[in-house]
Amino acid sequence: MTDKDTLSFPGVGPRGGLDDDPRVHVEELQLAFRNHAMPLEALRYDLTPAGLHYTLTHYDIPEADPGDWILRVDGAVRRNLVIPLAGLKRQGSEARRVTFECAGDGRALLSPRPISQPWLTGAVGTAEWTGVPLREVLNGAGLAEGAVEVLFTGADQGIEAKIEQHYQRSLPIEEAMRPEVLIAWEMNGQPLPPQHGAPLRLVTPGWYGMTNVKWLKSITVLGEPFNGYQNALAYRYSQDKRDPGTPVALMLVRSLMIPPGIPDFLTRWRLLQAGTIELRGRAWSGRSEIMRVEVSADAGTAWEDAVVGAAAGPHEWQGWNYSWTALPGDHELLCRATDADGHVQPVEQPWNARGMGNNGAHRVLVRVVN
Amino acid sequence: MTDKDTLSFPGVGPRGGLDDDPRVHVEELQLAFRNHAMPLEALRYDLTPAGLHYTLTHYDIPEADPGDWILRVDGAVRRNLVIPLAGLKRQGSEARRVTFECAGDGRALLSPRPISQPWLTGAVGTAEWTGVPLREVLNGAGLAEGAVEVLFTGADQGIEAKIEQHYQRSLPIEEAMRPEVLIAWEMNGQPLPPQHGAPLRLVTPGWYGMTNVKWLKSITVLGEPFNGYQNALAYRYSQDKRDPGTPVALMLVRSLMIPPGIPDFLTRWRLLQAGTIELRGRAWSGRSEIMRVEVSADAGTAWEDAVVGAAAGPHEWQGWNYSWTALPGDHELLCRATDADGHVQPVEQPWNARGMGNNGAHRVLVRVVN
Repeated sequence: MTDKDTLSFPGVGPRGGLDDDPRVHVEELQLAFRNHAMPLEALRYDLTPAGLHYTLTHYDIPEADPGDWILRVDGAVRRNLVIPLAGLKRQGSEARRVTFECAGDGRALLSPRPISQPWLTGAVGTAEWTGVPLREVLNGAGLAEGAVEVLFTGADQGIEAKIEQHYQRSLPIEEAMRPEVLIAWEMNGQPLPPQHGAPLRLVTPGWYGMTNVKWLKSITVLGEPFNGYQNALAYRYSQDKRDPGTPVALMLVRSLMIPPGIPDFLTRWRLLQAGTIELRGRAWSGRSEIMRVEVSADAGTAWEDAVVGAAAGPHEWQGWNYSWTALPGDHELLCRATDADGHVQPVEQPWNARGMGNNGAHRVLVRVVN
Repeated sequence: MTDKDTLSFPGVGPRGGLDDDPRVHVEELQLAFRNHAMPLEALRYDLTPAGLHYTLTHYDIPEADPGDWILRVDGAVRRNLVIPLAGLKRQGSEARRVTFECAGDGRALLSPRPISQPWLTGAVGTAEWTGVPLREVLNGAGLAEGAVEVLFTGADQGIEAKIEQHYQRSLPIEEAMRPEVLIAWEMNGQPLPPQHGAPLRLVTPGWYGMTNVKWLKSITVLGEPFNGYQNALAYRYSQDKRDPGTPVALMLVRSLMIPPGIPDFLTRWRLLQAGTIELRGRAWSGRSEIMRVEVSADAGTAWEDAVVGAAAGPHEWQGWNYSWTALPGDHELLCRATDADGHVQPVEQPWNARGMGNNGAHRVLVRVVN
C-alpha cells in the first residue's frame, strides 16, 4: 500500500545491523519482552505448558474469531478449497509431540551481534499438537502438474526490511507431503492460545520454528519456488547480509541443561552445595536421534558422557542426566550433544550474519560452597 | 547456609546499579526473557490468557506436586494449621477478576536506568482468580493478641543483594483481612500454571504484583512488622539505594493503548492509513475508579478526552476508546488516566532509585500515510 521510502523508520544500532557491544538497544528489548523464552527450569517438563513454551511473533498477534475462520487452498491445485474451521476439524485429527526451536535462538551471544530478536537461550519448547495432516488437505485439493512448493500465509501483518507483508513461508512439496506435517488447532489438549496461532497453525516437525506458520489463512501450491522475504532474505545462513547464503531448514543438534542449585536474582549465577549433583537436561536434532550428550565441568577442557534417555517419539527432545561431583569453587558447566548423523554441537559458536542456527554448547556459571 | 562473601557474584553494569546508557546488559536480558511481558495488543482481551499475562519470577519456578502440597499457618495464632491443598479447596471458593501490574513496570525507560528487571511496558494482565478468602483461613487459625502483620512465604528460593532467601512478603493485618484477598488455585478457570504459582498463590487486589506471593507454602502471623529483604529493602520508593524511602503498596494510576496499525518488526514503529482511527486501551488504579483518560496526538501538547468504559468489577481495568483523525506524517501518541482520587499520570516520568511505580504516560510512535 505504501512506497518503500515511507517504510524507512529510524533504525536500531550502528553499522546497519551488527553491534560489537553485547548490550542491547531499547528497540531490541521491546522484542525480548514481547517474545517469550522458556525459563530453563521448564526443561523438567516433558511437555512444556503453553505459557512457558517459547513464542516468536514477527508482527502483532492478530484478533481471530474461530467462528468465522476460513482456510483457503489454491494455486496449482485441481480445485480451490474454502474450508471453515469446523469443516477442517471433521477431516479427522492426529496428535503429535513435537519440539520447536526458533532459528535465532542464541543470536545475542554472537560477537559482533546481529541486531534482531536478541535471543540468549530458551527459544524452545515441546508440545502436543492436534490437527489434520496437511497432505490430506492437499490431496483433497489435488496437486496439479508442476507443483514444486507450498506457500503458507498467516493473518499477521507488518513490515520487515521496508517490505510490507503478511507472514509467509513455503515448503518444498515433498516436505509438505510428509505424513507428520499437521494443520493444528490444539496445543496440549486445549484450543490454541492466541500467541501460538489461534485458531490454526502449521506444525512441521524437525524444522526450525519459522516454518510453523501461525494464524494460518491460506495455503497456495506454487509452480516455482517462493521468493518472498522470509524464505529468500530473512532465514538464511550467510556471512554477509548481501550474500543470499543458504536456507535455514531443519534444527541443528542442540542440548540444554536445567541450571542446578539456586539463582542470584540479577546475575543468574547459580549457588550449590558441594556433593553429588544430578545434572539434567534435554537434547534434540531436526530429524535425527540424539546418541550422546557430554558434560564438562571445567569450561570445556574435559568431557564426560551423560546418560541419554530413549526418544519418547520421533519428533521430541530426549532427556539426559549426569552425576557431577561438585567441589567447592567457581565452575563453568557445559553440555553438548551428538546426533545419529554424527553432528556435534560446537564448543565455540561459529558466527553468521543473521544469527541463525546458533547451536554452541550451553554454558552455566555455578558457585559451589561447603 | 553460606557467608555473605560467597554470595558476591561478578556484578552487572557500572556504578553500583545505575546506568546512563539505555542499552541493557546480557545479564539483564536474561531477566527480560525469563519474565514475560504482555504484548500490548493483548489489551484487547478483558481477561488475559495465561500465556500472555505478565510473569515475574525472582528465582526459579519451583517443582511442585499438588498431591503433597501443604499450606502451614503459624505464628501469632491460637492454633497452628497444616492444610493439605485438597482440604483448603473444601473450605469454599470465590472467583475474582483482578488486574495485576509489576511495581517495576517501565523501569528501563528511566535515565539513569536502575539495573534490575528491565521492564519497558506490559508488565500487566487481568485474570480471574479462584480460591478461598484469606481471612477465612486466618479466622480458622484465630488471630492472637498483638498480631500486626501476616507474612507469606513461597517455595521459590534464591539470592538477592547477597541475602539467601525464600521469596517473602508481608501485609498489615487490616489489609490481610480484607474480604477480596484470596488464596487462589485457579486462573481463568484452569489450575494455576507453574509460572503463576501452582498450586497456590496469594491474590491481593489493588496492590502491585510483588504482594501476590506465588508457590505459597506458609502464612505466619507476626507480632511486629516484617523486616525482610523484599519489604524493607527491595520494594521501596527512594532517591538513593541507601535511603530506606517509603514502601511500595497499591498500584498507581496508569493507562496503556493498543498500538494502532501494523508494526515494523525491529523498531516497533507503527504504520497506519490516514483517516479515522479508533484508539483503544485500558486503565486502572490500585483502589480507585478511573474517571478520565486523555489522548494526545502531538507528543503531549494538546489533550482530548477519550470515552471511558464502566468498571466491570472493583478490581479490574477499565476500557477506553478515542476516535482519532489521523493525518499523514509522524506522530507520537500518548494516553494518561485520572482516577477518582484525582491522581493523574505524569507526562514526564519522575525518577526513583529502584525504578518503582513508573506510571508515566504511555507513548507510541506512529507513521500515518495516505
